[in-house]
Amino acid sequence: MTAKRILIVGGVAGGAACAARARRLCESCGIVMFERGAYVSFANCGLPYFIGDVIVEEEKLLVATPQLFRDRFRIEVCTETEVLRVDRERKMITVRNLGSGEEREEPYDALVLSTGARAIRPPVEGIDLPGIHVLRTIPDSRDIRRVVETASRALVIGAGYLGLELAENLVRRGLAVTVVEAAAQVMSTLDREMAAFVAKHLEANGVDLRLNCLVERFTEAAGGGVIASLSSGDDLVVDSAMICVGVRPETTLAAQAGLTLGRLGGIRVDEQMRTSDPAIWAVGDVVEVRNVVTDEWQLVPLAGPANRQGRLAAASILGKVKSGAGYRGVQGTSVCRVFDLTIAGTGVSEKGLKAAGIDRYEKVYLHPGNHVGYYPGAKPIHIKLLYDVTDGAILGAQALGEAGVARRIDVISMALQMGGTVYDLEEAELCYAPQFGATKDPVNLAGMIAANHLRGDHPLAKWEELVDAHAQVVDDQSEATRLLSLILRDPASEAQIVDVRSAAEFEAKHIPGAKNIPLERLRERLSELSREREIWVVCGVGLRAYNATRILLQHGFTVKNLSGGMQTYDSIEGTKSPKL
Amino acid sequence: MTAKRILIVGGVAGGAACAARARRLCESCGIVMFERGAYVSFANCGLPYFIGDVIVEEEKLLVATPQLFRDRFRIEVCTETEVLRVDRERKMITVRNLGSGEEREEPYDALVLSTGARAIRPPVEGIDLPGIHVLRTIPDSRDIRRVVETASRALVIGAGYLGLELAENLVRRGLAVTVVEAAAQVMSTLDREMAAFVAKHLEANGVDLRLNCLVERFTEAAGGGVIASLSSGDDLVVDSAMICVGVRPETTLAAQAGLTLGRLGGIRVDEQMRTSDPAIWAVGDVVEVRNVVTDEWQLVPLAGPANRQGRLAAASILGKVKSGAGYRGVQGTSVCRVFDLTIAGTGVSEKGLKAAGIDRYEKVYLHPGNHVGYYPGAKPIHIKLLYDVTDGAILGAQALGEAGVARRIDVISMALQMGGTVYDLEEAELCYAPQFGATKDPVNLAGMIAANHLRGDHPLAKWEELVDAHAQVVDDQSEATRLLSLILRDPASEAQIVDVRSAAEFEAKHIPGAKNIPLERLRERLSELSREREIWVVCGVGLRAYNATRILLQHGFTVKNLSGGMQTYDSIEGTKSPKL
Repeated sequence: MTAKRILIVGGVAGGAACAARARRLCESCGIVMFERGAYVSFANCGLPYFIGDVIVEEEKLLVATPQLFRDRFRIEVCTETEVLRVDRERKMITVRNLGSGEEREEPYDALVLSTGARAIRPPVEGIDLPGIHVLRTIPDSRDIRRVVETASRALVIGAGYLGLELAENLVRRGLAVTVVEAAAQVMSTLDREMAAFVAKHLEANGVDLRLNCLVERFTEAAGGGVIASLSSGDDLVVDSAMICVGVRPETTLAAQAGLTLGRLGGIRVDEQMRTSDPAIWAVGDVVEVRNVVTDEWQLVPLAGPANRQGRLAAASILGKVKSGAGYRGVQGTSVCRVFDLTIAGTGVSEKGLKAAGIDRYEKVYLHPGNHVGYYPGAKPIHIKLLYDVTDGAILGAQALGEAGVARRIDVISMALQMGGTVYDLEEAELCYAPQFGATKDPVNLAGMIAANHLRGDHPLAKWEELVDAHAQVVDDQSEATRLLSLILRDPASEAQIVDVRSAAEFEAKHIPGAKNIPLERLRERLSELSREREIWVVCGVGLRAYNATRILLQHGFTVKNLSGGMQTYDSIEGTKSPKL
Repeated sequence: MTAKRILIVGGVAGGAACAARARRLCESCGIVMFERGAYVSFANCGLPYFIGDVIVEEEKLLVATPQLFRDRFRIEVCTETEVLRVDRERKMITVRNLGSGEEREEPYDALVLSTGARAIRPPVEGIDLPGIHVLRTIPDSRDIRRVVETASRALVIGAGYLGLELAENLVRRGLAVTVVEAAAQVMSTLDREMAAFVAKHLEANGVDLRLNCLVERFTEAAGGGVIASLSSGDDLVVDSAMICVGVRPETTLAAQAGLTLGRLGGIRVDEQMRTSDPAIWAVGDVVEVRNVVTDEWQLVPLAGPANRQGRLAAASILGKVKSGAGYRGVQGTSVCRVFDLTIAGTGVSEKGLKAAGIDRYEKVYLHPGNHVGYYPGAKPIHIKLLYDVTDGAILGAQALGEAGVARRIDVISMALQMGGTVYDLEEAELCYAPQFGATKDPVNLAGMIAANHLRGDHPLAKWEELVDAHAQVVDDQSEATRLLSLILRDPASEAQIVDVRSAAEFEAKHIPGAKNIPLERLRERLSELSREREIWVVCGVGLRAYNATRILLQHGFTVKNLSGGMQTYDSIEGTKSPKL
């Protein structure tokens, strides 16, 4: 292997992983890492928890120091050094020491761009006022930590992962927190009815959540702090506002160098993370990646994929990637903890499938316990599984709950990676002991429901059908009436809704217009049901309704199970809008 | 579908699952379940926790009652009814009501044997004395619970899953507990060096653990209770002794009926759980199953597989299994919690591979945190991964730790099911947030270490090589000297052991004969190493040693990493014997 001079621009996540891997593969290469900030390889995922005082010592955030890179890897690290220009012809970059202002040139054989992403600052009047922060770096978190010491009211703008983690940590520090989100839901990676669980949980933890809401203007408050004027008409007076509306690839350098960018604004790379220039690689938040399910380009600013891309780029530079063994794309597996709720997902959401024009999918909802009910402390996991109706291939899954959530999504992620189907989930042999699961694990159950559906044993109704039929008549009604009407289906119309729970459960809450026949009485009360009209069966979570569906099907009725039962009904009601 | 009369012998786990599934598939079939005991579908996995008062109410153990089977499924349940004989010619069974003593015949179209397993009672003198218990049923647990109220000293015989769960629950109830185990390790499903972690944990929790130890005789104690005379020469006086030495398939009925049994004493079934009689199926602890890795017959008394087999038998009876879609065999995925430690595994252990004559395997050890170190509360997970050296196929994995263990084993289990390799584990895209993992999840790390090994980038040394070289010289030495000698490698012999940890770490504990060169100084001290002899590098968990291995390899040394580092050394030392 000939010794190469490898220059890496950006020393966090992908860049750092690339540098370390390159050294392991080539002891004789020159490796230099340039970082504009003061820190390399810091734990940016930990910043909200540093603000929340969960992580107490700042030094903990330094995963690896320049000293460690030098001593252990003989990697030269230039912090507070900005890379200004790439001269592709001469294979030379120009860098500036931000301390001294001095500029110099550095030659390369291979250049790696790991420039990451920058926080979006929306063009809102007053956004540069003091007290308005973004959170990307250790100095940012230090600033916010200082503010939090004395603040009592904070505004978080944006209800994505970072915004919600930050909201939780501000509440932990005793602040009153408002979160405003322009979209109709929190966490855009989730489908709306799943996001509704998160919204409820935020509100239960005292967060003032405003969906469909924008900040239109910031002004200085008389007594200090800022006034945020919202699109709802409210003026909020807060000590501090945090902008968490997402990130954009930091492609200034790539654009200057004339590298090909994608439609989404990230750098285009091949399967070995090589850019349009064969001597330049790019990794991490700055690149566009292929989604393994949709095969579409995406921006996926996650640390795990950045790390893998960095390792791969190093191997590619050093000629160690076998043909066909390149980057397989991203699944978008992710997890986030918000108060007591873990939210995780893999693959594509339903809206993602729709956006990609994939319509041959089906979905199931379920709400099993994280472990058997007889062992104390079981918590429900709310799961949505999306799969291909033609062959049962897994397309995506979302799950939330207080325990055991990441485990189930990780299993489904592994299955998806291997090209698995719902039949594979049905058969999966997973850990079972009373504290850990059930003989039918939630993953098995998801697979079983979907597989029974595909086998024709278990027809499923979609909640949207229930809702859509009435959506057009309610547009000018008040919100409360509208909600009810959305769900109310005229008993004389095409489908009969049969609720097979107990009379007591039915009394507590039911879908307006539904008829109550407890499962135990169903066989003897068949004569009360019409054979002319389709029956939609509902219960608590879908299990009794499944048994009812099997009974009715075999007695010649046309029947579907409203997947996920009243728990899913509640979550859809929680979306406060007919369109899922 | 023609209505069939389906009789099911045994109403727990597999039998109950079969009955419910049969009803869902066939509304018109007659389905009768016979159970010798007083309860069907009870939570036998919960019994130790009922004894420990973790599960307080006995009714919680009744997952489904005869009433529920009747009302919801129209399944007739005959409890306290023993099936005496099968007349295969006439398709008729003879049953006896254990209350009235009355016998009657019942005709079947399909018969399902789910007779389970019975606890082994070893032929030890005095085993039938009062105060000596087995734990299989609710009445058993009721008895033991009563004993525990007043007892202060208990003996558990057998250190398998049940024995250790029981030991934990007895300690929880304030008893002094001794566990005796005939084998040289606890938990026979684990390899010995992994089981050593469990043994240490038991001892740390006050359990008096005696390995390589048998009870030779029970006698009545003068003041009540029993005296257990051990093979070690000790006499233990305890209030109660619990026999947990395993189970044996309950094949009395199958043998009477002349069905084919396997070499291990279980019923032989085909891929649809059909016995040698085409009208008789068998499921659960009573059958032998194929191991998916070794393709050998096994007895796997686990609830998850029993449940799947029950469902499959129902589908088979009703002609709903497509050809080729039969039982895929078992992986043996299992989990157990003992005090604060979770122990889980999937696939085959190293000794299982050896026993099956599979020698083209390799293994890696690692000890990553369950999540990033900078987030508080990270706990190590001790992992052993076994894989095929020819293609990297996953053969088995064992893991233990305080958190995140079942999740990693479940992911590996899913990968194994899908025919995955260590390269797939390396690439897996798993949930990462600071509380949940790391950008390189423990599963990724296991895959990376193994894949780097297979690619030739990361040669690994086996701890046995270190140990075996000296095993023959120590046989007649005292245990303490023997332990040291086992590990001590004469520095003048073939390999040099280089410990690349810091001087302080090295001082605290190191392998006798090892030379300390901290990783940071390695490049400048290469001249101290011989190029003639193989170098074995060691560090804390294997990561620094991996970097050292890469450095030394590229400088032309012959080098191997002692996989798992000092943590694995400690566990091997803990086995107290050279043979792994």
